[in-house]
Amino acid sequence: MRVLGIDPGIAIAGFGFIDYIGHRLTPVQYGAIQTEAHTPEAERLLQVYDSAAALMDRYKPDAVAIEKLFFNRNVTTAFSVGQARGVIILAAVQRGISVAEYTPLQVKQGVVGYGKAEKNQVQEMVKMLLKLSAIPKPDDVADALAIAICHAHSAGVMNKLNEVSRK
Amino acid sequence: MRVLGIDPGIAIAGFGFIDYIGHRLTPVQYGAIQTEAHTPEAERLLQVYDSAAALMDRYKPDAVAIEKLFFNRNVTTAFSVGQARGVIILAAVQRGISVAEYTPLQVKQGVVGYGKAEKNQVQEMVKMLLKLSAIPKPDDVADALAIAICHAHSAGVMNKLNEVSRK
Repeated sequence: MRVLGIDPGIAIAGFGFIDYIGHRLTPVQYGAIQTEAHTPEAERLLQVYDSAAALMDRYKPDAVAIEKLFFNRNVTTAFSVGQARGVIILAAVQRGISVAEYTPLQVKQGVVGYGKAEKNQVQEMVKMLLKLSAIPKPDDVADALAIAICHAHSAGVMNKLNEVSRK
Repeated sequence: MRVLGIDPGIAIAGFGFIDYIGHRLTPVQYGAIQTEAHTPEAERLLQVYDSAAALMDRYKPDAVAIEKLFFNRNVTTAFSVGQARGVIILAAVQRGISVAEYTPLQVKQGVVGYGKAEKNQVQEMVKMLLKLSAIPKPDDVADALAIAICHAHSAGVMNKLNEVSRK
């Protein structure tokens, strides 16, 4: 299974593709979609959409996992992140790719094992699980990979439950 | 000039097309894009996008005017409205249609003439200016028409300034 994790945003959206086969996690490609601050908002949304769509067409993920909500941010930020998130989800659903959502708490639980983990612990775990030589930068990229790992682990548990129920 | 006004939302997005020729405002088509509450969010975003795109292709507006921010709403609502707004703006920019944003204050000023107007005053003004027999329902539709009128009036002022500067 190939998962695309996304940490959405209009200025920068982190992305990370990972393969999850057996119990092995392998990084495929990761990075960030960035747009210029002085570009009109509508144009920036188009850039985010086109970049996300091109990445999906190139790396063909089976699922897109995306962060759910930033309760601690303000309304203006939520509005802006929501818009970027909307066009990324649209690109996925137009391609028939399933979309899963995880809260920051779920991501921490899914990656480190408990919901109160520090940001740095999550990043170290991402580095370790994907056998990377360093923590990916900026944070948005590491966050995107964490969301992808969270989904892979959730999906892995579901598969195991299915195996058990088939016995 | 044909303007499409949009009051964005995921459950319901009001839309209104108006023509503004000379100083005449004429309603072309108005209504609401609605999606079912129990449909997955990604599917609802696709429905909003597809409906908005189909309306733009059919009525070919020169500009899209959209409400800017709902400062008085909560973060979760802002996130959800932002997503719907994102896919509608995307549909416009993909078609080369310019997108203008107006705050609720600007809409009141542009339609009624002062920013502290009551919602009902705005709706009555929409009815009068467009020579409608009744206030369009639900509120989202009247709001969308108000945003379109606000843009037509702003654009009208700009044209007048251009005429003056050409003399």
